Amino acid sequence: MRVRVLITPKEGLLDPEGRAVKEILQDNGYKVKSVRVGKVVELEVDDPSQVKEMVEKFLYNPLIEEYVIE
Amino acid sequence: MRVRVLITPKEGLLDPEGRAVKEILQDNGYKVKSVRVGKVVELEVDDPSQVKEMVEKFLYNPLIEEYVIE
Repeated sequence: MRVRVLITPKEGLLDPEGRAVKEILQDNGYKVKSVRVGKVVELEVDDPSQVKEMVEKFLYNPLIEEYVIE
Repeated sequence: MRVRVLITPKEGLLDPEGRAVKEILQDNGYKVKSVRVGKVVELEVDDPSQVKEMVEKFLYNPLIEEYVIE
């Protein structure tokens, strides 16, 4: 089974990559209010119930990131 | 309006980060068949019809990546 995990910087925290992308788009004439850049991890697993544990142990930093399992 | 763009390495192409994550998880006893790691870009825009152009011009590399707009 394929499981998708989205790991993004916590709201309100500095997101240098997001800010850089926003500036590039705005400098090129696009109306963009905000940009957040994070990671998407697509896992092919037999047991999806293990994914939460995998994420919390190895894939995300709780101090600066939040995650969503889809 | 919030638009989400998922940018992942093309299937079959070398995905060093995905392979590293897979090895770590397997070394720690998790049964994982495959892992792909990519980028998620969340944009707050007024005109969602411009997102495709933004992505194709600035956000992804067509040689090694593919994207999905959600």
